[in-house]
Amino acid sequence: MHLKKIERIRIIPLGGLSEIGKNLTLVECGKDIIALDCGMSFPDDDMPGVDYVIPDMQYIVKNKDRFRAIFITHGHEDHIGAIPYLLKQINVPIYGTKMTLGIIYNKLKEFKLEKDAELIEVPAGATVELDCMNVEFIHVNHSIADAVALAIHTPMGTILDMGDFKIDSTPIQGEMIDLARLGELGKEGVLCLLMESTNVERPGYAMSEAKVHGSLENIFLKAAEKRIIVATFASNVHRVQSIIDTASKFGRKVAVSGRSMITVLEVASQLGYMNIPQNVLIDIDLVNQLPPEKVVIITTGSQGEPMSALYRMAYSDHKVVEINNNDLVVISATAIPGNEKMVNKVVNELFKSGAEVVNDAISEVHVSGHACQEELKQIFALVQPQFFIPVHGEYRHLKKHSLLAQSMGIPEKNIVVADIGNIIEIMGGKIGIVGTVPSGRVLIDGSGIGDVGNIVLKDRMNLSQDGIIIAVALFDGETKNLLAEPEIISRGFVYAKENEELFAAIKRFTEETVVNEAGRANPLDWEYAMKTSLREALTKFVFDATKRRPMILTVVKTIY
Amino acid sequence: MHLKKIERIRIIPLGGLSEIGKNLTLVECGKDIIALDCGMSFPDDDMPGVDYVIPDMQYIVKNKDRFRAIFITHGHEDHIGAIPYLLKQINVPIYGTKMTLGIIYNKLKEFKLEKDAELIEVPAGATVELDCMNVEFIHVNHSIADAVALAIHTPMGTILDMGDFKIDSTPIQGEMIDLARLGELGKEGVLCLLMESTNVERPGYAMSEAKVHGSLENIFLKAAEKRIIVATFASNVHRVQSIIDTASKFGRKVAVSGRSMITVLEVASQLGYMNIPQNVLIDIDLVNQLPPEKVVIITTGSQGEPMSALYRMAYSDHKVVEINNNDLVVISATAIPGNEKMVNKVVNELFKSGAEVVNDAISEVHVSGHACQEELKQIFALVQPQFFIPVHGEYRHLKKHSLLAQSMGIPEKNIVVADIGNIIEIMGGKIGIVGTVPSGRVLIDGSGIGDVGNIVLKDRMNLSQDGIIIAVALFDGETKNLLAEPEIISRGFVYAKENEELFAAIKRFTEETVVNEAGRANPLDWEYAMKTSLREALTKFVFDATKRRPMILTVVKTIY
Repeated sequence: MHLKKIERIRIIPLGGLSEIGKNLTLVECGKDIIALDCGMSFPDDDMPGVDYVIPDMQYIVKNKDRFRAIFITHGHEDHIGAIPYLLKQINVPIYGTKMTLGIIYNKLKEFKLEKDAELIEVPAGATVELDCMNVEFIHVNHSIADAVALAIHTPMGTILDMGDFKIDSTPIQGEMIDLARLGELGKEGVLCLLMESTNVERPGYAMSEAKVHGSLENIFLKAAEKRIIVATFASNVHRVQSIIDTASKFGRKVAVSGRSMITVLEVASQLGYMNIPQNVLIDIDLVNQLPPEKVVIITTGSQGEPMSALYRMAYSDHKVVEINNNDLVVISATAIPGNEKMVNKVVNELFKSGAEVVNDAISEVHVSGHACQEELKQIFALVQPQFFIPVHGEYRHLKKHSLLAQSMGIPEKNIVVADIGNIIEIMGGKIGIVGTVPSGRVLIDGSGIGDVGNIVLKDRMNLSQDGIIIAVALFDGETKNLLAEPEIISRGFVYAKENEELFAAIKRFTEETVVNEAGRANPLDWEYAMKTSLREALTKFVFDATKRRPMILTVVKTIY
Repeated sequence: MHLKKIERIRIIPLGGLSEIGKNLTLVECGKDIIALDCGMSFPDDDMPGVDYVIPDMQYIVKNKDRFRAIFITHGHEDHIGAIPYLLKQINVPIYGTKMTLGIIYNKLKEFKLEKDAELIEVPAGATVELDCMNVEFIHVNHSIADAVALAIHTPMGTILDMGDFKIDSTPIQGEMIDLARLGELGKEGVLCLLMESTNVERPGYAMSEAKVHGSLENIFLKAAEKRIIVATFASNVHRVQSIIDTASKFGRKVAVSGRSMITVLEVASQLGYMNIPQNVLIDIDLVNQLPPEKVVIITTGSQGEPMSALYRMAYSDHKVVEINNNDLVVISATAIPGNEKMVNKVVNELFKSGAEVVNDAISEVHVSGHACQEELKQIFALVQPQFFIPVHGEYRHLKKHSLLAQSMGIPEKNIVVADIGNIIEIMGGKIGIVGTVPSGRVLIDGSGIGDVGNIVLKDRMNLSQDGIIIAVALFDGETKNLLAEPEIISRGFVYAKENEELFAAIKRFTEETVVNEAGRANPLDWEYAMKTSLREALTKFVFDATKRRPMILTVVKTIY
C-alpha cells in the first residue's frame, strides 16, 4: 500500500438513515470518492402509485470526475436496487463477490445495461487498490450468500462498514463471519466503524440458520402424509438449500414456483452457491402426478404480495397448485412492517381452503439475518473503533445504537448520529458534521424518475379520499350566455346512478352559479375568474350536502 | 321464568367474524329477535376515504316487528359504534351496564339521538326478562370497566356470549370475572357458547392489569427527575386510574390531553368508575408552570393517530407541551395491526426531540384485555357447553378456536365455524348452518351511509395510483370542426410545469386524434363515439410515453 497523506476523510450517507432501505454511503478520501452499496426501498403508504424509491444521487453526478467505484456488500435490493439508475448517469466499476455480481448482472439485464457495465469480482479476503484507498472484503453471515463487510484502508486509518450481518457459528453453508480478521483490524486500530442498527432493540443473539433447519426437519417428520409448501425470500439461498436438503432426506421431490425463486435458484446453482442433489427438482407442472407426501413446493409470496405464487395459490388462481386440506404451508419469513395485513389475508384464505399454516409465531421456521445486541457488542469489543456512526435504521434505532456504543466505552463525542446528506468529517482527531449535500428520496413511477413529488402525491392522496367531480360549462364568448347546460362528471365520489337527485342538484347549482357569476366576473381574465368562483362555490355546496371533500375541477370555455 | 316452548333457536352473526370488528350477533327465539352488541370497525387500506364500516342491518329492519332489544357487553367502539345507525331506522331499548350506557349516551349526543333513545341500566348479576328469553348480565374482566358476558336463557337452554374478556384475579378496580356464576351455569347446562377468538394463537394467560401498575411504579422511580407523558386508550379506565394513582403516590400532578381522554375521564368519574384523589388533576395549560418532575401528562395517540395529542406533541404542534430531553414518554398500548408504521413515525419524532420512549417491547407497560389459550380452556372446562361457536376473529382464529374446543372435548360436529350472514340453527339436538340472510359491510363516508361501494372504491384506488388526465375538445356541431385547441388538465399524474414537453405531446396527440376521428365516428351517437375512441387512444399513448396508467376522462362537446 502506497497511500498519499491526507488531512481529512468525509463520510456522506445518502440513504439508509432515518428511513430504512436504499443504503448508499459515500467515502471521500483525498480527491477520490467511492460508494458503499447503492440500494432502493419500497414506497410508504403516503406514496400511492410509486414503484420504488431511490436516493437522490445528484451529488455523485456533480462530482463524477472524482467518483471511482461502487462497492457492494451483498445482493439484497436495499443494497443494489439503485445501481441501474446510477449507471445510466455515470459508468464506474462495480466491485462485489461472485453471488452479489450474479444478482446485479440479472438486474442490469432487465435495464439492458449489462453490456456496458464493468462488474469486477472480488472474493472475501481480497483487497481492491485504488489511488487513495484500498478496500478489503471481509466475509460475514447474513440471510443471503456471499455477504461481506468492507474495510476501507486510508492513509488516516481504517473505516469499517459492517454491511448487513449476523454472527452465525453454524451457518448452513460457508464459514462463520471472519471474526479473526475483524479482531486483527481492531488490534491494528480502526478509525471509524459503521454498523447496522436493525436489531439494536433486540437483546441477545440472532438465532443460527441451523435452528431453522432443525425446525424444518421436525415439521417434515410430523407432516409425513401431507404435501408441504414452503414460502420464503428467494434471495435466502441458505434457507432454500435447507428446504431442498430436508426434502431430499425425506424422499420428496421439490418443485419451485414464482419467477424470482426460479431466477435465484438458477443463478445460485450456476455459481456454485447451492448444491442440488440429483433427481430432486421437478417441474411445477408435474406436482399433481405425484402423491402429496412425495412433494415439496418452494414458493415466493412470504410477504403476502398480491399476484405472488403463494397469493395465487391462496386465492385459487394458481395454474397448477390447488390448496386442499392435505396441505401444510410453512411461511418461513417474518412480515416486514407494513405487510402484516397482507400476510394475514393470505393465511386466512389458505385456512379457508383447508390448509394448515405454520409461521414463525408457531414454530422456529425463520431467524433474523441481522445482529442483535450481544452480537453488536461483540463487534464493538473486537474492533474497538475510535469513532462510530450507527447506520441502517430509523432514528430511534440510531439513537439506541449510540447508547449501546457508549455502554461499550466509546465516548459520546466520538459518535455521530447523522441524517442523510450530512457531511461527516474526520479531521484532527475529531469527528463531526460539517455541512450537507443535496439528498432525499427520488420516486420511481413507471418510466419516470423523480417526476413525482410532494404535490403530485398530495393530489393522489386527495383523489383517493373522496374522488373527483368535474364541472364543464361552455359560454358564448360575446354574450357570456351558457351554450348548453353544464356537464357534471365524477369518479370515486358516490354511485352516480343511485344518487341521481344529488347529481341533479349539483348540476342545478352549477348552472345557477355560472349564470349569476357571468356578469360579475372580472372581464380581463374572465375564464379564470369563473373557474375559480365556481370551484369554491361547488366545494362548499358538495361538502354541505355530503360532508365530503372530493377534488373539484371546473372547466369554463368561451366560444367565439 | 315462564318461557314458552320453542322448537329451535337461531343465531345469526352479522359482524365480528372473518373480519375483526363491528360485532353484531342476532339471537332468534320463537318470534323474538335480540341483538348482542352493535359495533363498527375502521376501514382497511383498500377503502380510501371511508370513515367507518358498519354491518349490513337490513335483516333487522325487515324484521323490525319481531326485534325486541339490543344488549351491549361493553363500551368499546367495535361493540357500540353502529348503534346510532341502527337507532335511526328502528327504536328499541338498549340494555347495558352503567359505564357502557354512559359511553353510549355520549355517542348518541353526537348524533342528536340521545333524547329518543331508551337506555336501560342493568347491573352485572341482574337479569332482563323478555317474552321468549331472559338475559342475564355476568361480570367479566376486560380493558374497559363494567364489561359483561350475556347468558341468554331460553326454553331450549342457555346461550352464553362471553363478550370480550380475560380472567384477571388482581384487577385494578372491581372484582375478578364471575367464574363462580359461569361454573353454576355449566352445572345447570349451557346449550351453546359463543366465545371471542382474539388471542387464541397466544399460549398461556393474558397478564393481569396489576402487572402494568407495578411497571409504572418502577418507571416513576427511575425517572424521578423527568416529566412523564403516558399515552394509552382513553377507554381503558383502569389503566388511567393506575397512572393517576402512581402519579399521586409520587407527588406529581396530572394533566390530561386529547378530547376522548377528557370525555372518558369525566364520564368515568361522574359515574363512580374512577377515584381521583383531591388536588391531583391540573389543567393542561398549567403544566409549564410546574417543574418537570412534578408533572404527569396522560394523552391520547397511543396508535400514532394523525392529529392526536401525542402526534401533535411529537411534531411540535401541541399548544402547550413541547417535547425535550427531560421527557419520558410511555406508550401504554400495543399497536393494532396496520398502525405499526404510524406509531414508529411518532416514536422517531419523539426521539429526535430528545425524549426517551418506553413501550411494551421494552417494559411491561401494556397487557392484553383478551383471554389467551389457558383462559379460553378454563371457560370451556367451567361451562362445558353442548355447542360452540367461535366468534370475534379472522377465519384462522375461528378455525384454531375450533381445534382448541375439540381438544377440550367438544365434538367437531357440535362446533360451527360460521361466516357473517349465516343462519346457525339449533334444533333437535343438532347445530348447523341452514341458510343465510343479507349481510356485509356498509361504508360510512361523510354523511353518506352505503353510497360508497366497490366501483367507487376501485376508482379511488385507481385515481391514487397514477392520478387523472382530462382532455376537453369542443366541436362545431354542423361542420364537426374543432372550435379551439383541446384542453388537457391533470391531477396527481406528474408535475405539469416540469413536464411541458410531455403535456404538449399529449395535447398534439389529442388534437390529431379528434381531427382524424371526427369524420369516422358513428354519426348517430357522435359525441359518445368520439369520447370513447379518444379515451382508448390517449390511454395507450400515455402508457407508451410514461409506463403509467392514469385514469383518462374525455369531454367531447358539440356546439350548435
